[in-house]
Amino acid sequence: MVKQLNSESVIPLYHQLKEFLKEQIESGEWKPGDRIPSENELRKRYLVSRNTVIKALDDLVREGLLHREQGRGTFVSLPKIEHSLTGFYSFSKVLKAHGLEPKDVVLALEKTRAKPSVAQYLQLEEPAEIWMLRRLRCAGEEPIILETSYLPRARVPDMDRKTLEHSSLYDYLDRQHGILITRAKEIFEPVLIRDYESRYLDVPEGYPALLLDRIAYDGKRYPVEFCRSVVRGDRCRFYTELL
Amino acid sequence: MVKQLNSESVIPLYHQLKEFLKEQIESGEWKPGDRIPSENELRKRYLVSRNTVIKALDDLVREGLLHREQGRGTFVSLPKIEHSLTGFYSFSKVLKAHGLEPKDVVLALEKTRAKPSVAQYLQLEEPAEIWMLRRLRCAGEEPIILETSYLPRARVPDMDRKTLEHSSLYDYLDRQHGILITRAKEIFEPVLIRDYESRYLDVPEGYPALLLDRIAYDGKRYPVEFCRSVVRGDRCRFYTELL
Repeated sequence: MVKQLNSESVIPLYHQLKEFLKEQIESGEWKPGDRIPSENELRKRYLVSRNTVIKALDDLVREGLLHREQGRGTFVSLPKIEHSLTGFYSFSKVLKAHGLEPKDVVLALEKTRAKPSVAQYLQLEEPAEIWMLRRLRCAGEEPIILETSYLPRARVPDMDRKTLEHSSLYDYLDRQHGILITRAKEIFEPVLIRDYESRYLDVPEGYPALLLDRIAYDGKRYPVEFCRSVVRGDRCRFYTELL
Repeated sequence: MVKQLNSESVIPLYHQLKEFLKEQIESGEWKPGDRIPSENELRKRYLVSRNTVIKALDDLVREGLLHREQGRGTFVSLPKIEHSLTGFYSFSKVLKAHGLEPKDVVLALEKTRAKPSVAQYLQLEEPAEIWMLRRLRCAGEEPIILETSYLPRARVPDMDRKTLEHSSLYDYLDRQHGILITRAKEIFEPVLIRDYESRYLDVPEGYPALLLDRIAYDGKRYPVEFCRSVVRGDRCRFYTELL
């Protein structure tokens, strides 16, 4: 049964169409990898203009539910990578649980001095000496998160770029420095991907993303890392259970 | 001390400037309500073009850190409304904790039939009869969340629009129907505000928002509500503790 759009609604036609298409995906009628009807077919089926169809599809591509393959059409995307907030999680482990191969690219590892906000998060006297570690965290070859970590050099005197390419930061801290991260505070807010992030994350500017700040603590509740990540919204979502 | 921007960095100048201005706010040097230097002053101080200044300020306005007042200048915004994900929360209680007055506007209350995705969330046989309740949740006069709830009519035979304007939904379910919501699953992802949402939420299209899905359960773990919200990213953020 084809649902008809309501041209008298306060909700614009493209938004109604977007919701109809989204419903096909959410209800499981369209499955990941399925090719969806062409723009022309959608136009005829829902009696709307080409612009309306394109606007609805663009939104769903931006939100990561659909993707276009040049010359082949528009397809339903794989489900997003789900991060549970119900317990401590590591990106590498989340990926492995999704059957994806974690791969980290170290973009920068520098000795620097804490700016005031970072000094506050890490409870340091400024201008304390810190490490700035910037990594691109990938699922296979696909970049997912652009992450910048700040660590106090008083706690972490040396860091090795090579090792960090092949090991999780927290495993590294544990093995090399005997620092065990046991808890974290995370703060989320939605942002837009900006140009230099867009180059690293390989998505167009203006795509939705999560800005995620994490303060990670050791067993004695000293902050050991402040980390600011830009997480692709078209590829990730987060869930939690509230009691 | 004025930081100098680095024109040879891979990070564009406007992004560097944005980070510098953000640092003034995050470190507490600039406080909520402070007027920040004018575009001209920023241009001279950081030796950048007017476009660079405007682009950096636009981003910070979109992210809710700054706001413009016509003819008066650009000001540091109040801190965002923080929702803790560490326990069950109600929007009304979060607002009161921030010293803000919760106000709900019922936009629609309709008897309808569950679409397949909603039937799945609520574990109903489709096409089960449900309520669709759409509310605009405000802090005083400021709209913050556009929220659409779906409730099974088998559990909730009647709903009263007037009462819902003056009572939380969960209080109403408890008092009128003896249904106590005790747990919920929430799923988040970042999206962009689209046009009809933008009209209700009183922010421009393209601003960042969180799409928040909640399934709320009663004490026997039956789903009683599926709720999809669009939360203004310029006014809200979420935090959690991970153990």
